[in-house]
Amino acid sequence: MTRPGRFITFEGIDGSGKSTQARLLAERLPDAILTREPGGSPGAEEIRALVLTGDPGRWSPETELLLFTAARRDHLEKRIDPALAAGRTVICDRFADSTRIYQGATRGDLREKVDTLHRLMIGREPDLTFIIDMDPAAALSRGLARPDAESRFEDFGLEMQERVRAGFLALARQYSDRCRVIDGNRAVEAIAADIATQMGLAAPG
Amino acid sequence: MTRPGRFITFEGIDGSGKSTQARLLAERLPDAILTREPGGSPGAEEIRALVLTGDPGRWSPETELLLFTAARRDHLEKRIDPALAAGRTVICDRFADSTRIYQGATRGDLREKVDTLHRLMIGREPDLTFIIDMDPAAALSRGLARPDAESRFEDFGLEMQERVRAGFLALARQYSDRCRVIDGNRAVEAIAADIATQMGLAAPG
Ligand SMILES: Nc1ncnc2c1ncn2[C@@H]1O[C@H](COP(=O)(O)OP(=O)(O)OP(=O)(O)O)[C@@H](O)[C@H]1O
Ligand SMILES: Nc1ncnc2c1ncn2[C@@H]1O[C@H](COP(=O)(O)OP(=O)(O)OP(=O)(O)O)[C@@H](O)[C@H]1O
Ligand SMILES: [Mg+2]
Ligand SMILES: [Mg+2]
Repeated sequence: MTRPGRFITFEGIDGSGKSTQARLLAERLPDAILTREPGGSPGAEEIRALVLTGDPGRWSPETELLLFTAARRDHLEKRIDPALAAGRTVICDRFADSTRIYQGATRGDLREKVDTLHRLMIGREPDLTFIIDMDPAAALSRGLARPDAESRFEDFGLEMQERVRAGFLALARQYSDRCRVIDGNRAVEAIAADIATQMGLAAPG
Repeated sequence: MTRPGRFITFEGIDGSGKSTQARLLAERLPDAILTREPGGSPGAEEIRALVLTGDPGRWSPETELLLFTAARRDHLEKRIDPALAAGRTVICDRFADSTRIYQGATRGDLREKVDTLHRLMIGREPDLTFIIDMDPAAALSRGLARPDAESRFEDFGLEMQERVRAGFLALARQYSDRCRVIDGNRAVEAIAADIATQMGLAAPG
């Protein structure tokens, strides 16, 4: 497939500022579309709802992995790939790296399945991934202040978030070509300026 | 896993009599549980509804394959494997062979993905599979007489059913150890007696 557009993802622990920074970057790029996972297309949002609502223990990690991969496939086909083919920048709030870490690194024996499934059914890697790194306790206190704490992953607690953080940092080393670790322990504007610089944009006026 | 129970599946084109024969066999085996795919467990039934309701064109073959595999994984974990582990006979109306044929054989380039995904995430094969073989035109006329024609696959028409029939016959040769081809162009009772004989049961009184 011809793919003139750029595919940029934001990753990091819960509450690290991914959505905030993805939105700020999208506002600076007139051609960009901003999307998110799980979800991002009507079909994928339906699958997201199936996974994230109801009893959190009703799906096994393997079933959940298959459902998230189905959602990602739909999102890729219906939204990401068409936009990239049209030459647009696609900014995605979480993508396959989140699956590698949440379904993979936190359940060691699943990581190989995650990677095989990704190669088999998705096969798309971002051109650039910003991993917003910060102390989970600080991120959690931000998260607790929010009214919309939907995600069940936030229930898993600090110890889990520490493992997730370490997982993202290891991933940044594994995929060092496309990953940039961003210090999230700063003011929103300082982080946005850092990301803009890495994108080759002028610092915000 | 210890698996003292027997796992028996029914396969074949739409309207060939799978559900009828699966039910009749289950009635003859006091320890058996009767189940079906897609579906068969509460979670899998939710996924089934997501795939089979709504606009039939909204999922690509790849996304549909992932959703059916997620449903199968849930069904296997929650219903099939526990029953087999308890020593019960599990009779399942369609299983992975249907995916091999409907998602695989009818879209040649998908078959390899179907098989890889099965090995990766399911990995369970039946001990015995009855493939009910018959003329699609005759099966279709039965199906049209039914009030509950839910399945969208029936919309695909005769030419598709011919390809599905050929696919099941090829599969019976590929997995000849576990597959038995049953002539479905007969009265219900004659087919049931044939299946009972192959199961080592006495012919019905
Ligand atoms: N640099 C920052 N300093 C202080 N607060 C911030 C900063 N960035 C974001 N926040 C606030 O922290 C909360 C979480 O931010 P945001 O929703 O962007 O994080 P997220 O990584 O997308 O979280 P989630 O993983 O839950 O989706 C929000 O209330 C947001 O306004
Ligand atoms: N041997 C038979 N002779 C005549 N009619 C039959 C026979 N077996 C089943 N039928 C009838 O044909 C219809 C289809 O049978 P059944 O539902 O068992 O098929 P099926 O293979 O499960 O179909 P589907 O693929 O749609 O689930 C039903 O109305 C059933 O009563
Ligand atoms: Mg967010
Ligand atoms: Mg049936």
